[in-house]
Amino acid sequence: MTLKTGFLGYRFMGRAHANALSRLPMFFPDAPAVNREVLIGRDEDALGTAVDELGFDRYVTDWRDAIDEVDVLYNLGPNDLHPDPSITALENDVHVLSEKPLAHTLEAAERMAEAARESDATAGIAFNYRFVPAIQLARDLVASGELGEINHVRATYLQDWLVDPDAPWSWRNSAERAGSGALGDLGAHSIDLARFLLGDDVERVSGHLRTFVDERPVAEGGTGGIDAGDGSAVETREVTVDDAYTAQAEFAGGTMGLFEASRFATGHDNANTIELNGSKGSLRFDLERLNELEVLRADSRGFETVLVTDPDDPYLEHWWPPGHVIGWEHTFVHENYAFLSAIDGGTDYAPDFGDGLAVQRVLEAIQRSDRTGEWTTV
Amino acid sequence: MTLKTGFLGYRFMGRAHANALSRLPMFFPDAPAVNREVLIGRDEDALGTAVDELGFDRYVTDWRDAIDEVDVLYNLGPNDLHPDPSITALENDVHVLSEKPLAHTLEAAERMAEAARESDATAGIAFNYRFVPAIQLARDLVASGELGEINHVRATYLQDWLVDPDAPWSWRNSAERAGSGALGDLGAHSIDLARFLLGDDVERVSGHLRTFVDERPVAEGGTGGIDAGDGSAVETREVTVDDAYTAQAEFAGGTMGLFEASRFATGHDNANTIELNGSKGSLRFDLERLNELEVLRADSRGFETVLVTDPDDPYLEHWWPPGHVIGWEHTFVHENYAFLSAIDGGTDYAPDFGDGLAVQRVLEAIQRSDRTGEWTTV
Amino acid sequence: MTLKTGFLGYRFMGRAHANALSRLPMFFPDAPAVNREVLIGRDEDALGTAVDELGFDRYVTDWRDAIDEVDVLYNLGPNDLHPDPSITALENDVHVLSEKPLAHTLEAAERMAEAARESDATAGIAFNYRFVPAIQLARDLVASGELGEINHVRATYLQDWLVDPDAPWSWRNSAERAGSGALGDLGAHSIDLARFLLGDDVERVSGHLRTFVDERPVAEGGTGGIDAGDGSAVETREVTVDDAYTAQAEFAGGTMGLFEASRFATGHDNANTIELNGSKGSLRFDLERLNELEVLRADSRGFETVLVTDPDDPYLEHWWPPGHVIGWEHTFVHENYAFLSAIDGGTDYAPDFGDGLAVQRVLEAIQRSDRTGEWTTV
Amino acid sequence: MTLKTGFLGYRFMGRAHANALSRLPMFFPDAPAVNREVLIGRDEDALGTAVDELGFDRYVTDWRDAIDEVDVLYNLGPNDLHPDPSITALENDVHVLSEKPLAHTLEAAERMAEAARESDATAGIAFNYRFVPAIQLARDLVASGELGEINHVRATYLQDWLVDPDAPWSWRNSAERAGSGALGDLGAHSIDLARFLLGDDVERVSGHLRTFVDERPVAEGGTGGIDAGDGSAVETREVTVDDAYTAQAEFAGGTMGLFEASRFATGHDNANTIELNGSKGSLRFDLERLNELEVLRADSRGFETVLVTDPDDPYLEHWWPPGHVIGWEHTFVHENYAFLSAIDGGTDYAPDFGDGLAVQRVLEAIQRSDRTGEWTTV
Repeated sequence: MTLKTGFLGYRFMGRAHANALSRLPMFFPDAPAVNREVLIGRDEDALGTAVDELGFDRYVTDWRDAIDEVDVLYNLGPNDLHPDPSITALENDVHVLSEKPLAHTLEAAERMAEAARESDATAGIAFNYRFVPAIQLARDLVASGELGEINHVRATYLQDWLVDPDAPWSWRNSAERAGSGALGDLGAHSIDLARFLLGDDVERVSGHLRTFVDERPVAEGGTGGIDAGDGSAVETREVTVDDAYTAQAEFAGGTMGLFEASRFATGHDNANTIELNGSKGSLRFDLERLNELEVLRADSRGFETVLVTDPDDPYLEHWWPPGHVIGWEHTFVHENYAFLSAIDGGTDYAPDFGDGLAVQRVLEAIQRSDRTGEWTTV
Repeated sequence: MTLKTGFLGYRFMGRAHANALSRLPMFFPDAPAVNREVLIGRDEDALGTAVDELGFDRYVTDWRDAIDEVDVLYNLGPNDLHPDPSITALENDVHVLSEKPLAHTLEAAERMAEAARESDATAGIAFNYRFVPAIQLARDLVASGELGEINHVRATYLQDWLVDPDAPWSWRNSAERAGSGALGDLGAHSIDLARFLLGDDVERVSGHLRTFVDERPVAEGGTGGIDAGDGSAVETREVTVDDAYTAQAEFAGGTMGLFEASRFATGHDNANTIELNGSKGSLRFDLERLNELEVLRADSRGFETVLVTDPDDPYLEHWWPPGHVIGWEHTFVHENYAFLSAIDGGTDYAPDFGDGLAVQRVLEAIQRSDRTGEWTTV
Repeated sequence: MTLKTGFLGYRFMGRAHANALSRLPMFFPDAPAVNREVLIGRDEDALGTAVDELGFDRYVTDWRDAIDEVDVLYNLGPNDLHPDPSITALENDVHVLSEKPLAHTLEAAERMAEAARESDATAGIAFNYRFVPAIQLARDLVASGELGEINHVRATYLQDWLVDPDAPWSWRNSAERAGSGALGDLGAHSIDLARFLLGDDVERVSGHLRTFVDERPVAEGGTGGIDAGDGSAVETREVTVDDAYTAQAEFAGGTMGLFEASRFATGHDNANTIELNGSKGSLRFDLERLNELEVLRADSRGFETVLVTDPDDPYLEHWWPPGHVIGWEHTFVHENYAFLSAIDGGTDYAPDFGDGLAVQRVLEAIQRSDRTGEWTTV
Repeated sequence: MTLKTGFLGYRFMGRAHANALSRLPMFFPDAPAVNREVLIGRDEDALGTAVDELGFDRYVTDWRDAIDEVDVLYNLGPNDLHPDPSITALENDVHVLSEKPLAHTLEAAERMAEAARESDATAGIAFNYRFVPAIQLARDLVASGELGEINHVRATYLQDWLVDPDAPWSWRNSAERAGSGALGDLGAHSIDLARFLLGDDVERVSGHLRTFVDERPVAEGGTGGIDAGDGSAVETREVTVDDAYTAQAEFAGGTMGLFEASRFATGHDNANTIELNGSKGSLRFDLERLNELEVLRADSRGFETVLVTDPDDPYLEHWWPPGHVIGWEHTFVHENYAFLSAIDGGTDYAPDFGDGLAVQRVLEAIQRSDRTGEWTTV
């Protein structure tokens, strides 16, 4: 049986997932067969091109038309488009893989998680960094107890693409569409990674959000922009989300957490870093060097830089010999392999909408704490 | 004229400052002449040995006996011994260099700062990391505007010497004597560095303190320990300070700050790190690599690892050719050179007791915020 | 028109090139269309499986049967299989992409280069590391003159997969089949990279070869192995190539070169590093961190770590946003894109068999120098 | 008893050793007492200043006048001044610590070693990098067998202070005075470190020397310079030594060696690096991060960055708590402590003139190989 997939969204994430699907047969021959059936969007010109490039059979311009015709819906649209299509799909027992964060509001996320609980279909959330081999290795180290009790986690996700005040406005700057800014886009990854590595939940937080640039120009041809006739942008839009956040956290098991993300961290492209300090050992990870894990064990004196490319490292037997590094996109291949295999095998998949909701609750608590100035229980 | 100095304290800090004084003539020949006159302590045996090793003329066992006989008092004792001797010295127009934090309580720190304001003597606080050449270079970069407006500062000071629950109790674990734990010992450095580099003050904070191990064994012969007769420690003492803290901060100028220190960060000996992200550039520093500064300028694409050992780098013309690195102790030489030269020249010295008080206010606000669970104005 | 390709070889390199071809349509839509027509090998069982996994139409067991039926021959077999099929293909105006080194002997390499000169077909050699974006950026920096005259090049390629004396014998340990060991396998890359970056040729060399382990067990089922009945290998084979080499070199333009490769460098998986020092600047590269280039410019004080993932970096506009790193296999995509586009467009392709021959001459000179103990002109 | 010392030379090395002596009492209280008795030089003005700054009692302008009056002669002059004063001192049973390389010619080095053998005095050579704690730790690791048989050593010493063709001529550019350039100045350290770490001798070498800039301006007031009246240098002098060298080496025990040094390696101030690869483990060191040793053990997967500042690391109990790094100058303190203690205790001291001669033989063999173009037996 071949799984028929429909993608809602065909830009960055659409390409990442389409590429992942296209690579499964050669590298994961036991993955279920998948057909890229239908692409969902609004701009027919763009859809026509994307259908060809991403290897889909056809496109539709209303997601409702696709639900009946696919086994799996990839919800890769802006955050406010996650709830309705995902819930409808689940109600029709169509499997869903939703991009993160789960939704633009906690209320919507709760509805999605409720729909997932009541559906027979699999509802996954695309926290792809769980599928970095170094992160899987890290999780195994923590779970084995080799690091002891984890006293500290600090996770920072730094980018700098909005430092320029003339960087154009997009839906990612809109509270209505995105829910939050750096917090939901980047912080969601940090919080999920911490939960995944620790196997523990955040209990309470103190958060701080900040918008450095309050309005941004609308790009030519951008949403709602009006061309002045001379090619320049004539309109700006308000930035209603955070450019950066910080948070302190306490986990149920007692771990102290420190979180930060920014789109204003000059000099950082994609520095998704996390460090854990346990009573017996520590580890460090940086997505910009995603093939490496720095590990400190009980009997070592310093961090050991492990190149996680050996055949018995997670997922690595499928790829290349030791030292032949993989890239960012491989995390999507692993994620899709795990997700589709779970569907195919009828087994549980993690991270699921429950995980997405758990992260969303932390995001919301951070926002609430920022407003009240008080520590907030998740 | 030779400045006569008295040291209250002769262990770690006593040795660091005595060494610094002994090196001035060879490397800073224009520094004022200094005599190591008198060592102040309680244990006469230890004092006798220390007088020889540290090059002092003699010792006394009551600090009151030393005030009249010195030009400069180095207050290197536990935090609760900072106020009285320092204030008495200043009242007698004896210059004071006090170790950090300024005091064990905010109230005492305020009295010290008041005494400093009313005295004609110089009152310095030993935030020695201001005197790392890389930090001076960093400050110059920020002050020149080359990094633009500073959006982020994150400063972390990680050690691991208390991870072992059997590590012995010391005055540093006592709220009464130390005021706080990692916060005052390590966090004070971070906060001072941030203030120094930014030229700005913390306006409000949200803090979190944590004690991982509640009581510790008293070492044989340790303060208050009772020997069981078989050489083993028979008593434990309560740990009344934090083993680790985190804090979020907002500076007057709008910079977002994130702070953390721990004595439980397995794998870190002395990782005093600070990073600034400005609108035009960024910089990073790690005390474990104190000769290096990582700099990102407006026209660079990545952080540049600068080895700060050129003759026109701060203080470096006094030392060795490029690439011949200096050590931790050199920060004390620079600090003493600056402090003594200020005394000699009748000029202002920074950091002074006012800076010490400013830091103490932040420390206290972090503690207060930890108790109330609310953001706290400094 | 669709280019029909045949692959001689279907293991490591076969998979790397098949993957590359499969990814062109999505990421390089202007690349010529390619069909994976025929796989060439001897073991029909393995071929059957490989045809499916690598996406070929069919297989043949004699390369002569494939020449007439393809537009492009990928010669991915052991080195001693490079000459005959490649020459026959070129004589039939079939394009050839040969793995490196060009051949197992200089004489064979010369025949191949001669065939390439006389053919209308394109003859490329698969020095894929030229197609690392950081290397292309490095070449541009050198070519622009920004680094000044290059005084030094040092290139080291370290692996450790033969440190274990029980690691099994393979054709790579046979002089007859491989020509040389670490020298031809790894050193060929170093020498090509140096030639590519400098735009200059090696004039003379002094070489040193070393075999640390003289014979190795033949793996069960390995070539020529005899099973003792208890599953253990019963036979060893002689290692007739170098496990490691070093070489000093002088380039025509005066650059001093230092080269080394080893399969005995414990702790290194795939450390293909190269550093250039010019009169105005320097650069460093390490394949294990292939997304990074360390650059020192005339006005910088230290090496700047550039993450080569910006849209205007070589090939990067085809992939992901800044900071989303690519992997080792992407070099093959770039290489195939360049090679097939050259065929399609009727333009020159580099590196070609002439480059392969130039490298082979250096390899041979190093071997000759090792035998004579004298500096040898290439 | 106090050892009376005389220093021939009072600039860079004079200051380094005077500083070392001045620090012994505080940090190495069991070191023998030392008096800085007499400074030897030619320029009386400079001597007068140096006597004060370096803490000597007086100066003389003829070394012969000092021999009778000191217990220990520190020979810190240019290389061609090493032989005569050292030999005369040893003939008078005055202990000698000579800077490296031992002499400007092999013949002179042999005479010096002969004098050392026939004298009752201690004759040490100042290969100070043996006294870096990380290097001592490295030696212990090798000697313990933990790294197995050492297959590779590669040692590189890179500086860039002569890249500028207008950098002034000095005695270090004169074959007559220095013997060689980068080879003797920097390469001598590399070769000594390799010998020390391996406990093995170089058997044969192939060398390559290169002078990039053939003549250099004589600095105003420099040796032999003539002022044109307008303050500009009017004369250049020929550079008769190498600006850079490379060498391949074979050790008696079979280790392959690769060596390089340059004063033209743009971007490197003092990059004295060495790496060993053994059958069970590896290690790496870089002088610019002298508190760190990178170690790979049999059971580790990557290099571990060890901060060599623990109390039981070599010499560290004398200094500061873990993580409080030492500097370049500390190597001189350790060296002097070891040297003077050997004198005081009547024990052997290493490295001695025999070690200096062994290194000199390698230096000379590299030069000879460069001339003949052939591998040369040491």
